Amino acid sequence: MAICFLSPAKPISISPLIYNKKPAVIRCNFSLPTITTTEPEPVFTSVRSFAPATVANLGPGFDFLGCAVDGLGDFVSVRIDPSVHPGEISISDICGTHASIKLSKNPLWNCAGIAAIATMKMLNIRSVGLSLTLEKGLPLGSGLGSSAASAAAAAVAVNEIFGGKLEVKDLVLAGLESEAKVSGYHADNIAPAIMGGFVLIRSYDPLELMSLKFPEGKELFFVLVSPDFEAPTKKMRAALPAEIGMPHHVWNCSQAGALVASVLQGDLVGLGQALSSDKIVEPKRAPLIPGMEEVKKAAMRAGAFGCTISGAGPTAVAVIDDEERGKEIGKSMVEAFSKEGNLKAVAMVKRLDRIGARLVGSVPTR
Amino acid sequence: MAICFLSPAKPISISPLIYNKKPAVIRCNFSLPTITTTEPEPVFTSVRSFAPATVANLGPGFDFLGCAVDGLGDFVSVRIDPSVHPGEISISDICGTHASIKLSKNPLWNCAGIAAIATMKMLNIRSVGLSLTLEKGLPLGSGLGSSAASAAAAAVAVNEIFGGKLEVKDLVLAGLESEAKVSGYHADNIAPAIMGGFVLIRSYDPLELMSLKFPEGKELFFVLVSPDFEAPTKKMRAALPAEIGMPHHVWNCSQAGALVASVLQGDLVGLGQALSSDKIVEPKRAPLIPGMEEVKKAAMRAGAFGCTISGAGPTAVAVIDDEERGKEIGKSMVEAFSKEGNLKAVAMVKRLDRIGARLVGSVPTR
Repeated sequence: MAICFLSPAKPISISPLIYNKKPAVIRCNFSLPTITTTEPEPVFTSVRSFAPATVANLGPGFDFLGCAVDGLGDFVSVRIDPSVHPGEISISDICGTHASIKLSKNPLWNCAGIAAIATMKMLNIRSVGLSLTLEKGLPLGSGLGSSAASAAAAAVAVNEIFGGKLEVKDLVLAGLESEAKVSGYHADNIAPAIMGGFVLIRSYDPLELMSLKFPEGKELFFVLVSPDFEAPTKKMRAALPAEIGMPHHVWNCSQAGALVASVLQGDLVGLGQALSSDKIVEPKRAPLIPGMEEVKKAAMRAGAFGCTISGAGPTAVAVIDDEERGKEIGKSMVEAFSKEGNLKAVAMVKRLDRIGARLVGSVPTR
Repeated sequence: MAICFLSPAKPISISPLIYNKKPAVIRCNFSLPTITTTEPEPVFTSVRSFAPATVANLGPGFDFLGCAVDGLGDFVSVRIDPSVHPGEISISDICGTHASIKLSKNPLWNCAGIAAIATMKMLNIRSVGLSLTLEKGLPLGSGLGSSAASAAAAAVAVNEIFGGKLEVKDLVLAGLESEAKVSGYHADNIAPAIMGGFVLIRSYDPLELMSLKFPEGKELFFVLVSPDFEAPTKKMRAALPAEIGMPHHVWNCSQAGALVASVLQGDLVGLGQALSSDKIVEPKRAPLIPGMEEVKKAAMRAGAFGCTISGAGPTAVAVIDDEERGKEIGKSMVEAFSKEGNLKAVAMVKRLDRIGARLVGSVPTR
């Protein structure tokens, strides 16, 4: 990754012409309010940031509750680049083990780029050009908030290079510009990617976020098992029911409440139980991922407190309070994907990330 | 009330014949498990209990979240009565300011009676007969959990006279027998009436309850404004939508989560906001109560943190952190009921009850 960070920048200038030709993208740059009244000076010549993977659609927390996962995520490096037109950003490199080949270096079509542009707009940056390097630690389309991690890392990096003038909510708004482009206007990945821990999206207009603090001193591990399978996004969306019967609505609402209470109380048994209790989305989506239903059963048999689909899949997520037991659970889940779904899968056991996107390196301007 | 307590018992014997003739009622007496293996001895000759009013259907907490209200509720007195057939209970008197004339003294058709019988059954009482006096402090059909308060007070009184062998969950189950008879198998009134505070009903089979602790030292007042109007129960039920669109489902789920978090964090502003945010039930029911929509607006204008319908109405409930401000809010709400709904209304300002049903008097057996 160090090599990636140090690779020479290949600026892509974003001319006003491009904006004019692509009105859908203009929104990224012009729909957001300018937060700072005066243009801030850069305080670093370069920064490097990290943003964690996230698990959204947490069972009954569908579309409004997500959490961050430690030790797994994307890095973004941003540096002041005199060769880039002032007020613009270029993506100099995209690297990493995961499918970077699929990602565009055009900042208008790249999650990190869109979020970086939105952040620059909010900061009112007009005099400095930036170049950005994206290091993908997350696989694309796995249900682990890959796009949100890139956007979160970029928003934080741009904000920090100019002295961190923006608030967390502004950074989420910047990241939302990117999410809206790639996966819909949903904050349940981008908010925890930026804020860490569990985040409840209370409303979008205005954006209201609730950070749900899982008690310090309590351990929470996620067993993340990703099968070698492309979850058909269109099918996953089409599987969602348009209408929900009152009994299922009441049930899922009560489980959502129980999930929130369990998080705040650090009740892992209750959290797992709530996570596993979705009667609306998971029952429709699980059959579209070969083996998923058996994988969940295998996780529970192996001692997991709960298990569901991470995001829109195909990753399965189980929760446990012990890393070693997590590894055993992961093994059982991988076996079930193989036996019942005929899919190869890899398991990881990761802690709850309590911090969210952060600076991991910087070079001061003087 | 003392007069009521001391009024002479008029036992109504419940013969097995009556059970046989009314199979719907048999469930009250025979569907519950016997909890105690040996029949407990009475430890008091008489006891007196109190159970508080409750506010259920808390906005987005529809059908699964309720809370108890201090200083407002029903009293039940129970005494060992040799003139009552062993293992049976009679209702000797029903008194109080609120519509006691409507209530049956047949224990099989009275909330307190059904809950008392269920509790006796769980305790395996075969050798002692009881007589019961019900003092109604709550109006019927007001949306303040009147039936649940009677049932809760009766269950606690019977349990306590035999030494308090049953657990809280058993008492809720006993009370549920009564609720099932009068208003459906919903625990969102009976559970907080017995347990106090906020209670989330997590599941019914098995019954799982979560007590949500509102932080000590934080004040929470309910402004309860009851108009002189009979909420048409059938209409109120018929108004509920059978199917709910996904966006409204997600919205209400997120608000339910926010409500739970606000309760646990003692965030009254957040609690009020969530309480007011229901997009599914309240918008359908409020128009059936003359003036309700304007009453809510009046409460908010007067400074309430939130306002919704209590239970199925017609009482409106607003929340605030100060008693005096609560009185002002209540005044505004009463005025709005008068002006917009052409209804007389009375306002009360009451604290959150954190205790639930309890013994308030007893006479030991020796």
